[in-house]
Amino acid sequence: MNIQYRVLSLLRENGPLSRAQLADRLEVPRPRLLSELDRMVAAGRVSEAGPAASRGGRRSTLVQLDPGLRFAAVDLGASSVDIEITDGTLTPVASCSEPADIRSGPVAVLGRISALLRAMADQGHYTRLDAIGIGLPGPVSFRDGIPVSPPIMVGWNRFPVRDTLARAHDCPVVVDNDVNVMSLGERHSGVARTVDHLLFVKIGSGIGSGMQHHGRIYRGAEGCAGDIGHIQVEAETDGPLCSCGNTGCLEAYFGGAALARDATEAARSGQSPALAERLAERGVLTALDVAECASGGDSASVGLVRAGGHRVGQVLATLVNFMNPSMIVIGGGLTGLGYPLLAEIRSVVYKRSLPLATGNLPIVMSELGPRAGVVGAAFLASELAYGEEV
Amino acid sequence: MNIQYRVLSLLRENGPLSRAQLADRLEVPRPRLLSELDRMVAAGRVSEAGPAASRGGRRSTLVQLDPGLRFAAVDLGASSVDIEITDGTLTPVASCSEPADIRSGPVAVLGRISALLRAMADQGHYTRLDAIGIGLPGPVSFRDGIPVSPPIMVGWNRFPVRDTLARAHDCPVVVDNDVNVMSLGERHSGVARTVDHLLFVKIGSGIGSGMQHHGRIYRGAEGCAGDIGHIQVEAETDGPLCSCGNTGCLEAYFGGAALARDATEAARSGQSPALAERLAERGVLTALDVAECASGGDSASVGLVRAGGHRVGQVLATLVNFMNPSMIVIGGGLTGLGYPLLAEIRSVVYKRSLPLATGNLPIVMSELGPRAGVVGAAFLASELAYGEEV
Repeated sequence: MNIQYRVLSLLRENGPLSRAQLADRLEVPRPRLLSELDRMVAAGRVSEAGPAASRGGRRSTLVQLDPGLRFAAVDLGASSVDIEITDGTLTPVASCSEPADIRSGPVAVLGRISALLRAMADQGHYTRLDAIGIGLPGPVSFRDGIPVSPPIMVGWNRFPVRDTLARAHDCPVVVDNDVNVMSLGERHSGVARTVDHLLFVKIGSGIGSGMQHHGRIYRGAEGCAGDIGHIQVEAETDGPLCSCGNTGCLEAYFGGAALARDATEAARSGQSPALAERLAERGVLTALDVAECASGGDSASVGLVRAGGHRVGQVLATLVNFMNPSMIVIGGGLTGLGYPLLAEIRSVVYKRSLPLATGNLPIVMSELGPRAGVVGAAFLASELAYGEEV
Repeated sequence: MNIQYRVLSLLRENGPLSRAQLADRLEVPRPRLLSELDRMVAAGRVSEAGPAASRGGRRSTLVQLDPGLRFAAVDLGASSVDIEITDGTLTPVASCSEPADIRSGPVAVLGRISALLRAMADQGHYTRLDAIGIGLPGPVSFRDGIPVSPPIMVGWNRFPVRDTLARAHDCPVVVDNDVNVMSLGERHSGVARTVDHLLFVKIGSGIGSGMQHHGRIYRGAEGCAGDIGHIQVEAETDGPLCSCGNTGCLEAYFGGAALARDATEAARSGQSPALAERLAERGVLTALDVAECASGGDSASVGLVRAGGHRVGQVLATLVNFMNPSMIVIGGGLTGLGYPLLAEIRSVVYKRSLPLATGNLPIVMSELGPRAGVVGAAFLASELAYGEEV
């Protein structure tokens, strides 16, 4: 692994370090390290940060990531966009969020993102960007930086997202699927730090997963690994039609859209007076209504959460036997359903998977919550800028 | 990666090469290569093999793996043991097979394996072994070289298989699960050469799988990744009881034992006159009877093969979405069921998995057949001896 990357990522994780500390941790000959550091100072990536604490002998000088380094992290969802500008250590220096309809197409949406970024430059948050990381709500060809047949991103198929943003902001850009990005965020600074084999599961409007082995995203042969939303959980002839054209898919049973549909049905059929009341008030129900009614004790709402958790648990039980992960992290909007969802998932997995695979397997909620996407996107941007093959 | 390993594995794959060819392929400075080769000649791992074809200038001498290198490859099944002695290029120089009842316990079985190995030494096939590779029909802690709670290996739990064989034969020993070993064989010299993301599925008396990414076995957090036999294919309340104590497991529906059970039922109930005739003749039915009756046109037998293939296909469809492999290879004893089994598996996977994941996905039968185990065990032994971290 190249020394520059190792220096930059050490400074990213640790903050300022002395030359002596760097030489110790990297186990490279000191003269080689010093000449690399000189080159990095000249390139404006690293700068001096005052004297280090004395270790006896001549005082070493601290080095740090150059305070002018800036990354843009973009988390684009189906109906919103979140942006953070961070420094070289991924500490946010500015952020903004606004509604964004993915269906208005790539030109409009990316144009608006670029305008938001420029506004943040005008406010003095950066003069130039060192890299941009962006997560998209659909399958992405990571190598090419384009979405590939994304079901909910009408008009985006094969649009050159990476190259468009790179031209507009004159910096390197990295594009990935939103679930992979969230999983990177959770492993970099959330609950999954240092986990060897991570399975991150997003339950939002759709359902997806991202795997990391020793901190590297596993993408599979065509880059679509982790797409668990269309795993069949009921036989062909049963079950609701899925957006993919099949029936019986996990996503057709659970996830934001399915839950809203089932909640509306429970309200209309009289099974849930609590949901019926909300439906009458607002005309529409969301997963949040189910969460609130469930925690208020509405048995139909509790039933919906449990049934969904049960189905997710069945799929995860299969994947746990197959993959034998070190940790499962559940993220995405439906984590608002809280402990009843987690409890049901755990119960199925712990009951149905191999004892050897579940003996030391934590199944936990995301720690970063809605910030997982931007944190992961900033991390991805920094990996690109610091020279790691992402 | 260390030069010695790279030289040895190149000679293993290619046979004799000149020093010039080695220097070209390894892209290391010639003086460094030559001094490494001298060391390897002195250690008896590499020897000279006459002059190379001239490339102009001074003639280079061919080097080869020392002809005295010997590996023992052991494939231990539930009821049989197969052994091969190979040279350094993994070419067999001798082999033997005999029935072995795994239930007679590790002392008896390993004692018999050691006696067979010594007999092969007495016959002049080797004077000393450079390494032994052995595959066991159950979960293995690869790091410790011991079986861990293996369901069909009564009395073997945590028995020091590696250390016992290493002491008996005074050489390094590597122990792995039989499915991982078969998958290594298939990638080293079978149908899956150079495949990036391989999913190998064994359908024998039980059902298991082994994954390789860029030629390395993926083992998961506890080393039990790939255990797909106990994935639930029917809801809890239905289905036959599995040896693991759960109901509805894939292995309880299909695999050698389940197929024999269902065939006997079909014979007794009058559904299959062909199976009934065989049952009356022999008193017991096996998967082979089903295969033969199916190819003879017996509709009940064809139905059993299709139903089994369908269930395997359902599980694989899920795993394909999740893992997005580059190739699926089906091996193990039940591949004797032939094309109808493969056709059914393909039909379900191609119908149920994501188009992006199946667009370039070959699903093929093992090329090495019953030899996959010994070929993989020899490969594993050579990796250990040549210095690769296996």
